[in-house]
Amino acid sequence: MRIDLNSDLGESFGRWTLGDDAALLAIVTSANVACGFHAGDPSVLRRTCAEAARQGVVIGAQVGYRDLAGFGRRFIDVPPAELTDEVIYQIGALEAFARVAGERVRYVKPHGALYNTIVHHEEQAAAVVEAVRLYDPELPVLGLPGSVWLRRAADAGLRTIREAFADRAYTPQGTLVSRRERGALLHDPDQVAERCVRIARGEPIEAIDGSPLTIEADSICVHGDSPGAVHMAQAVAARLAAAGVDLVPFAGA
Amino acid sequence: MRIDLNSDLGESFGRWTLGDDAALLAIVTSANVACGFHAGDPSVLRRTCAEAARQGVVIGAQVGYRDLAGFGRRFIDVPPAELTDEVIYQIGALEAFARVAGERVRYVKPHGALYNTIVHHEEQAAAVVEAVRLYDPELPVLGLPGSVWLRRAADAGLRTIREAFADRAYTPQGTLVSRRERGALLHDPDQVAERCVRIARGEPIEAIDGSPLTIEADSICVHGDSPGAVHMAQAVAARLAAAGVDLVPFAGA
Amino acid sequence: MRIDLNSDLGESFGRWTLGDDAALLAIVTSANVACGFHAGDPSVLRRTCAEAARQGVVIGAQVGYRDLAGFGRRFIDVPPAELTDEVIYQIGALEAFARVAGERVRYVKPHGALYNTIVHHEEQAAAVVEAVRLYDPELPVLGLPGSVWLRRAADAGLRTIREAFADRAYTPQGTLVSRRERGALLHDPDQVAERCVRIARGEPIEAIDGSPLTIEADSICVHGDSPGAVHMAQAVAARLAAAGVDLVPFAGA
Amino acid sequence: MRIDLNSDLGESFGRWTLGDDAALLAIVTSANVACGFHAGDPSVLRRTCAEAARQGVVIGAQVGYRDLAGFGRRFIDVPPAELTDEVIYQIGALEAFARVAGERVRYVKPHGALYNTIVHHEEQAAAVVEAVRLYDPELPVLGLPGSVWLRRAADAGLRTIREAFADRAYTPQGTLVSRRERGALLHDPDQVAERCVRIARGEPIEAIDGSPLTIEADSICVHGDSPGAVHMAQAVAARLAAAGVDLVPFAGA
Repeated sequence: MRIDLNSDLGESFGRWTLGDDAALLAIVTSANVACGFHAGDPSVLRRTCAEAARQGVVIGAQVGYRDLAGFGRRFIDVPPAELTDEVIYQIGALEAFARVAGERVRYVKPHGALYNTIVHHEEQAAAVVEAVRLYDPELPVLGLPGSVWLRRAADAGLRTIREAFADRAYTPQGTLVSRRERGALLHDPDQVAERCVRIARGEPIEAIDGSPLTIEADSICVHGDSPGAVHMAQAVAARLAAAGVDLVPFAGA
Repeated sequence: MRIDLNSDLGESFGRWTLGDDAALLAIVTSANVACGFHAGDPSVLRRTCAEAARQGVVIGAQVGYRDLAGFGRRFIDVPPAELTDEVIYQIGALEAFARVAGERVRYVKPHGALYNTIVHHEEQAAAVVEAVRLYDPELPVLGLPGSVWLRRAADAGLRTIREAFADRAYTPQGTLVSRRERGALLHDPDQVAERCVRIARGEPIEAIDGSPLTIEADSICVHGDSPGAVHMAQAVAARLAAAGVDLVPFAGA
Repeated sequence: MRIDLNSDLGESFGRWTLGDDAALLAIVTSANVACGFHAGDPSVLRRTCAEAARQGVVIGAQVGYRDLAGFGRRFIDVPPAELTDEVIYQIGALEAFARVAGERVRYVKPHGALYNTIVHHEEQAAAVVEAVRLYDPELPVLGLPGSVWLRRAADAGLRTIREAFADRAYTPQGTLVSRRERGALLHDPDQVAERCVRIARGEPIEAIDGSPLTIEADSICVHGDSPGAVHMAQAVAARLAAAGVDLVPFAGA
Repeated sequence: MRIDLNSDLGESFGRWTLGDDAALLAIVTSANVACGFHAGDPSVLRRTCAEAARQGVVIGAQVGYRDLAGFGRRFIDVPPAELTDEVIYQIGALEAFARVAGERVRYVKPHGALYNTIVHHEEQAAAVVEAVRLYDPELPVLGLPGSVWLRRAADAGLRTIREAFADRAYTPQGTLVSRRERGALLHDPDQVAERCVRIARGEPIEAIDGSPLTIEADSICVHGDSPGAVHMAQAVAARLAAAGVDLVPFAGA
């Protein structure tokens, strides 16, 4: 049994620090590195890629809207052709640092509002797919199972990687409970770690209403920018190891 | 006899248009494409690379300070390590669009205040050299003959391309007359074209004081963003052709 | 009989020039000056305010989304509380230049996607209203008749100014025909000028289907950033003068 | 006996938090609030002004270079006329939030590289003076005693406020020891607090070589963005109170 652990990294900017990248890079197998549009300055990208390469963590491009002030968390109605170009730009910028680190960008994961938007927004989903296809059709893409994004990516011949969220509650239909609702976030490291084991084993977890829910996932996202994040990621990794689940990057060399 | 003609392109941004890129791409052999830090948005970069590739014009990365408001024309005292990373970022971003166009970034030319600064600024010159060396030591760099920039690039093993300016007056010592001084800019297309022929042939031109000056150059820069720019570039190209000078990119495939 | 003529001005940025502000300031009575978020750098704002003051043109704050790359033309799902603060920031920044010019900001007009969004978006409309109310409840606001924006502004006790567009086609219901549809833009200066006279007189114009439509407007917007814009604005002003309609700012001293 | 305590505040941006503004606003008498060019988004500015007003802390404009990526810590060779306009813009933007909080901007203090540059750079110092003079010649300005900035401000008729730094070592000549040198920063809260008492009383402190040095200061700057910053500021305030030195803003109502 095996699963990938991914985390959002490289989200500091200039004087402002966010998250404990070094600690998370010692835990996860895939690093979603910000590309400078929602977070991440060039020196942050270089450092993050270098450390990921040193630790054997696979580098992915965490592409977002051009919105430092909003950290990429606000939907922007970017015309699809422009969005395609903005995503290509970001992948290329990150690729340069992966290359300097002796590595490559090995997958693409949209960030924040872009991630949420292309769960359902056909034109923007298609625009991001088109960016990946034009840049390198061999690049896998990470996303929510059942999303328009993964469906369109598959239609375009891209390899799709289904992602589960360690610390988020699910509806009985298998979608994420909105952050605005009560109980949307799980805070107990033990509970979160236990869910991850069940997801990795293909066993059902409890949806927010208590009903059993089976989530098919190739990768589990752990967060790095909240208090206790590192502790929770460590708990997840330890429990998976104890359960005999190997942590293996989906985009291994 | 042969020479390269280069021009700054891709300097529009969003709603704002600058220069007549299509017209210049029909004339020059090397396109210094802006990379988004001083000018150029992702869609402009993509369009410019696509058209350059279509016309057989070689694509180079025109890297600059992170300064849209100042168009990269204001010196910024960026710490060298950060400057290295900012240049790597820009080359990578442009490379993505060259790649989508079936091409590659084939050289690097600094822009504006960065160009002028590294004529003499040792640390920033070394920082830009380091960026190119780390990204791809096979990439040639374009710059002013006699500059710290070209000297350090050569010391680092990079191929250096010496550049002359078609429409700028020179001091008897072979440096550019400052734009703030009278007579710094030449406006007569015939005179400019004639100088270009002499430079291509290795014959002396007149310095601003009338004394003869031989400029060794592998490429001549023609400008694209002033009124009459296209007309002047056409005059230069036509006169060179008439004189039997072939226009050939220095970084040919 | 009297009407106000307004135009979007101050939309250059750094090296990039847009529109012929000087020519329009000789024609219009109200200047919607960009505030730096979608366009306009500090020196452009200063120059535009100085020239407006010199010509006796009333200065208004043309506030927009924080989006230079998109020129404020892309909807951004800014949380209302943040949008309120972004609008306050912009009004204050422009006020500084009005003050240096011996003047004041005398009204507020949203720009681009923000303008269009708050025709119907309740939360964002309320957020912009709140910004004006907090900053100065005496400031009139300019907008589309029938919009949520003007309704909410009136509910909050703000003075509302109804605006017509000189060069846009109208539906029989009095809304603007989308720019994406055929015939949305009128190009004939004579026709446009004639419509303006009818609007100023309270006479019906022709909707796009030929049916008569009466538009109640206190101000007419003429555009400044397209080819022929100045000529059209001059035609409108001349025709209004010939028809005995006085051009008077709605926010006169 | 009395002195003012000032601190740099409002330097968070979007998702990124910096400093403990609430804690410092309970200690200092003058708040140097960032204006959005080097740090501070509109909502941060609003919150900081509101809290300052609530606590009776005087609001000043902490103006800087337009450089979020560099946090205003990199010299930018901005042409003086543009710098004047950039400073006016920033003061106006902050004024809007002071106004919403029922207050006003009551002084101006340059930030980071701009602060350091105008200690000696005549043209940029004059440019910032001109901005304050144009905006409101009644506004006092804060700076280093002996700087070109304060000399030119005084020549222009502005009220000048001399500032000492609680946690910085001084040369025997009364200038700051460069941060790059050993011993430039003092870390012992007791020692720092003791120095502040001596400065407030007009008694000599020890320069870095041990020689006695009398610093004439109207205000003392305490930092808020380093670990232990709040503790040190509290120590300073407590020691000053114990020594019978009243904390009084220099720009009192």
